[in-house]
Amino acid sequence: MTPLVSIIMGSTSDMPVMEDAAKFLNEMQIPFEINALSAHRTPELVSDFAKNAAERGIKVIIAAAGGAAHLPGVIAAQTQLPVIGVPIRTQMGMEAWDAMLSIIQMPPGIPVATVGVNAAKNAAILACQIMALGNDDIRSKVVKFKSTLAAKITKANEDLAKIKYEYKTN
Amino acid sequence: MTPLVSIIMGSTSDMPVMEDAAKFLNEMQIPFEINALSAHRTPELVSDFAKNAAERGIKVIIAAAGGAAHLPGVIAAQTQLPVIGVPIRTQMGMEAWDAMLSIIQMPPGIPVATVGVNAAKNAAILACQIMALGNDDIRSKVVKFKSTLAAKITKANEDLAKIKYEYKTN
Amino acid sequence: MTPLVSIIMGSTSDMPVMEDAAKFLNEMQIPFEINALSAHRTPELVSDFAKNAAERGIKVIIAAAGGAAHLPGVIAAQTQLPVIGVPIRTQMGMEAWDAMLSIIQMPPGIPVATVGVNAAKNAAILACQIMALGNDDIRSKVVKFKSTLAAKITKANEDLAKIKYEYKTN
Amino acid sequence: MTPLVSIIMGSTSDMPVMEDAAKFLNEMQIPFEINALSAHRTPELVSDFAKNAAERGIKVIIAAAGGAAHLPGVIAAQTQLPVIGVPIRTQMGMEAWDAMLSIIQMPPGIPVATVGVNAAKNAAILACQIMALGNDDIRSKVVKFKSTLAAKITKANEDLAKIKYEYKTN
Amino acid sequence: MTPLVSIIMGSTSDMPVMEDAAKFLNEMQIPFEINALSAHRTPELVSDFAKNAAERGIKVIIAAAGGAAHLPGVIAAQTQLPVIGVPIRTQMGMEAWDAMLSIIQMPPGIPVATVGVNAAKNAAILACQIMALGNDDIRSKVVKFKSTLAAKITKANEDLAKIKYEYKTN
Amino acid sequence: MTPLVSIIMGSTSDMPVMEDAAKFLNEMQIPFEINALSAHRTPELVSDFAKNAAERGIKVIIAAAGGAAHLPGVIAAQTQLPVIGVPIRTQMGMEAWDAMLSIIQMPPGIPVATVGVNAAKNAAILACQIMALGNDDIRSKVVKFKSTLAAKITKANEDLAKIKYEYKTN
Amino acid sequence: MTPLVSIIMGSTSDMPVMEDAAKFLNEMQIPFEINALSAHRTPELVSDFAKNAAERGIKVIIAAAGGAAHLPGVIAAQTQLPVIGVPIRTQMGMEAWDAMLSIIQMPPGIPVATVGVNAAKNAAILACQIMALGNDDIRSKVVKFKSTLAAKITKANEDLAKIKYEYKTN
Amino acid sequence: MTPLVSIIMGSTSDMPVMEDAAKFLNEMQIPFEINALSAHRTPELVSDFAKNAAERGIKVIIAAAGGAAHLPGVIAAQTQLPVIGVPIRTQMGMEAWDAMLSIIQMPPGIPVATVGVNAAKNAAILACQIMALGNDDIRSKVVKFKSTLAAKITKANEDLAKIKYEYKTN
Repeated sequence: MTPLVSIIMGSTSDMPVMEDAAKFLNEMQIPFEINALSAHRTPELVSDFAKNAAERGIKVIIAAAGGAAHLPGVIAAQTQLPVIGVPIRTQMGMEAWDAMLSIIQMPPGIPVATVGVNAAKNAAILACQIMALGNDDIRSKVVKFKSTLAAKITKANEDLAKIKYEYKTN
Repeated sequence: MTPLVSIIMGSTSDMPVMEDAAKFLNEMQIPFEINALSAHRTPELVSDFAKNAAERGIKVIIAAAGGAAHLPGVIAAQTQLPVIGVPIRTQMGMEAWDAMLSIIQMPPGIPVATVGVNAAKNAAILACQIMALGNDDIRSKVVKFKSTLAAKITKANEDLAKIKYEYKTN
Repeated sequence: MTPLVSIIMGSTSDMPVMEDAAKFLNEMQIPFEINALSAHRTPELVSDFAKNAAERGIKVIIAAAGGAAHLPGVIAAQTQLPVIGVPIRTQMGMEAWDAMLSIIQMPPGIPVATVGVNAAKNAAILACQIMALGNDDIRSKVVKFKSTLAAKITKANEDLAKIKYEYKTN
Repeated sequence: MTPLVSIIMGSTSDMPVMEDAAKFLNEMQIPFEINALSAHRTPELVSDFAKNAAERGIKVIIAAAGGAAHLPGVIAAQTQLPVIGVPIRTQMGMEAWDAMLSIIQMPPGIPVATVGVNAAKNAAILACQIMALGNDDIRSKVVKFKSTLAAKITKANEDLAKIKYEYKTN
Repeated sequence: MTPLVSIIMGSTSDMPVMEDAAKFLNEMQIPFEINALSAHRTPELVSDFAKNAAERGIKVIIAAAGGAAHLPGVIAAQTQLPVIGVPIRTQMGMEAWDAMLSIIQMPPGIPVATVGVNAAKNAAILACQIMALGNDDIRSKVVKFKSTLAAKITKANEDLAKIKYEYKTN
Repeated sequence: MTPLVSIIMGSTSDMPVMEDAAKFLNEMQIPFEINALSAHRTPELVSDFAKNAAERGIKVIIAAAGGAAHLPGVIAAQTQLPVIGVPIRTQMGMEAWDAMLSIIQMPPGIPVATVGVNAAKNAAILACQIMALGNDDIRSKVVKFKSTLAAKITKANEDLAKIKYEYKTN
Repeated sequence: MTPLVSIIMGSTSDMPVMEDAAKFLNEMQIPFEINALSAHRTPELVSDFAKNAAERGIKVIIAAAGGAAHLPGVIAAQTQLPVIGVPIRTQMGMEAWDAMLSIIQMPPGIPVATVGVNAAKNAAILACQIMALGNDDIRSKVVKFKSTLAAKITKANEDLAKIKYEYKTN
Repeated sequence: MTPLVSIIMGSTSDMPVMEDAAKFLNEMQIPFEINALSAHRTPELVSDFAKNAAERGIKVIIAAAGGAAHLPGVIAAQTQLPVIGVPIRTQMGMEAWDAMLSIIQMPPGIPVATVGVNAAKNAAILACQIMALGNDDIRSKVVKFKSTLAAKITKANEDLAKIKYEYKTN
């Protein structure tokens, strides 16, 4: 099956975080691909990837990077597809401030849809919301997923209700 | 007994921090309730909660949240009760700067009484100080509690006095 | 008339900001007082003020300060009344980070209800919300004020509707 | 014509910034609407807006806010449409750190596609890139727009070539 | 022996850090005292302490605090003695930014001589440098201590010289 | 008259800020000198200055610098005199964070007594407080100066009392 | 004459800052070129530029950028020449934190020699220091330039000596 | 063999980080030396080192420091050689913000080529890139090293290809 979403990251050290994106897409049964590409180590591959992604049938690109995180912006510069950027917190990074600012503060003309630090799952959800605009099957999956969010709170309240304090009244 | 204070949090992962608020109210023998509510996952429940809290007899709401911490502000927007916000330090957060700023920097018209990061106990104390304005029983408890604060310092000095240095003179 | 709210600030240079608190209380017809007191320049006056405020009939204290903003916390340490802290952005300050952190990060036992930077009006609103708990007249004023907030948005939309773009459709 | 993009902001004071989004959509001949809505002042209108947007034919929502910027997240919580958040630098804000963090650091399940500070034009471009997935007309406009970006650099180099230094060699 | 330096801290949890100050003074054979005092929990004791310190023979006060660290400033406000402030990194603090800014950004008229985060030893050295101005015995100790600093580097180089790399040349 | 205090700064662009130190010492009738010295442009002069200062009769050094502010620390490394560091906010600086951190975060062994950003007057006051330890004349001047601080608050309250609001009660 | 240094920037709006680099090279009589190139708007031109620079005789590249400043890193990824990065403070930037972190925090393998914010002149000086390693003419110019730095301080001291205070003693 | 690169650091506690620089130079077969020198503890040794480095045949200096990291700048002030600065994250430091700003924000005239936090390897690579300008042997090593960077990505992709998800399609 042709992948609709392409997840790329700068190195396999980002994989433990980005796995959440892969898992969500898997659950939603959205075909996807995962690759490592580096804006700095393999600039030509990044260029080829970005220019051919639309033609290959990719609808949304999710790009994760830490430190001076150029990957999402460099890809966004070379494709008309929406690019979702995921700032990664790294060992050498400045508490992820470097990754966040390097991804979000793009110049006029080349936006990157940035999500929170290490927010791989949210990147995948956003990708589905975007694809849902032109795909009824994905839309119904998104709507269904959204409806499950409340259920976690209900469960949480059941847990809280079990805690006993003398003056707690619920 | 009707709860006077309502403690709410976005998920049960905030419970280890917010427990300090529950414990303090329990010690003060102030009836309270604890619930999980999410500004984003259960917006309608939050709305119902906020609009009905005053009528149910709640005097003060303590709302805790991390990351893009919207819960305290969203509640404050829909009740005339004072809302105390507790910024929570989370795994994915930016050292709690995100939670602090998302709670404190409210627009004109909808204040949130923000306390320090993870300062659940202080939130409960503040709630008691507020309720003490119209409740003599709570006031005397607050005054009594305040008087105990100095005792900890006395104890600390006794500990310090035991440390021996040749040139230490107390 | 006995003042119910006491607004204090470190110097008259904070007055242009704190005026918004005074104006709001004036509109709400809540008796209040305004004074300058410095945690550092007049520590004894601050101490006297804090200890006597409750007895004088004050219900809520609003304390504003910039830089190493100790005033709100020092007062909170010596009264059982709720203290609302307003961080002030000053010429020499660190973009108000100093004032915000000096006010909000209080130790366990002595909370300060902190509002946003320069948020004098919100401090006054919060004071009214607190006093409303034990005062029906103030409560009805607060409820009425809250209902006016939506009106500004209606007006804003009328303004936006006047802007003409070819492809704007409302 | 039915609007495809809905631009919303917390107050008309954000309009000078958000005008860039309106202008871009106008140039692209994409029907849009602009409204003011406040997560805090008109929570019910925000709720109605978010829930009905998809049904009204809106494809993408652009939400701008400053300070404790809850608007984009609160809308995202109540719609399956992609929501693009624009952090606004405001007079009372903390150099826009508050707006950026309040918008980007959303909890799992409710992503907001955040762009740079005051990046209204990029928000509009991103909206077009998203809509292009299911709309060939918009896609060709996006591709055409992207191709113009390089032209500005060509012009810039002509300007730089005119500056004379003795040892400059181009 | 009358103490010349008074080390004070907000709670015994600061003792592991402040021990370095005590140890240095002990090595220098400078009589000192250590006490716990809280600007917030025991304001009157702090006031008494500050006002009487000079008369008791204290020459320099070293005050350590974390979070909204008011102790050094509150003492400095009530004594003419030089006060050295030590910002303490705490569990609930904002990476010590709160303590540093709360101590250093004092208003005109009431300086606090602030040293680095957790820099208890430097505080003690600074105290000695200050006392050396009027005390020849302490001055010669300070001069002697300063001369030992270089020795650590000599030792470090001996360690580094032992590391073998093929192309290392020293 | 032999100078007791030496004010040094990296360039004359710091003079408008440092003038406040000079004025205070002039008012206190403390002989002082002002010089420009650069840790980077004139390292040998800095070295000579630091090594000879004590012998020339200097009691305290006030060193101001902006950006990567090395001057105070480099001087402190070469003298046993107490060095007071003044972080200067500059055009190219990072909101004075660079100057503050470069001055305050000194390694063990070489403390710099850091005051607030641009706090030239406080540096001069601190210098007097330090010299007062061994000089009765300066001590009485410091005590007198401290007593004037409260007077400004009295004046401020007179100003505030003149502002009339219907519901203001003082 | 073949240029030895290539100054590139993202847009002509960086020219007022980067002019200082051009002026310094002009004074040093080092042939140079200035061009605008955008990592995002003209990625292929950047790639061509980076790959051919060494062959064209360029020895050092100075790359300036603001916001999500990818230009220096993207060039460094495609050349073996040393790349000096200059973070530019821009209107929409986060006080230049974004530019600084986007340039300096490069991944292992692709360093960028980063200088201070807007430090165009220092970039040019560093370029000369680097070229001096293999060029005696440039080396003697660098040594001569370095010797002039102290002269500014001498001039500054003459200015300071003219300021009269009663108790100033130099 | 005469060392071409001199690695210096403030204390042996920086060695675990700086080892990466030594290893890289060893692999590249570039003769180097490692020493500990402190801008504050051994200012005269630093001065001697800086002034004699060029004459001894050193081409590039790599200087690492944490906290108020003055070492790189103080050396740069006393040599015409290019100085590469490595900010070190330390126990007492402010998340390395102090080291980064103390090194990068140098005044006009004395640049330090700053690399990322703890980026010792990048410092060594940059040193090689600089020396490659006048040394064909080093240049070919640098070119060869650069070509290996892409290989890591190829390996990473092989790893990623092994991860199986039902809907992953590559």
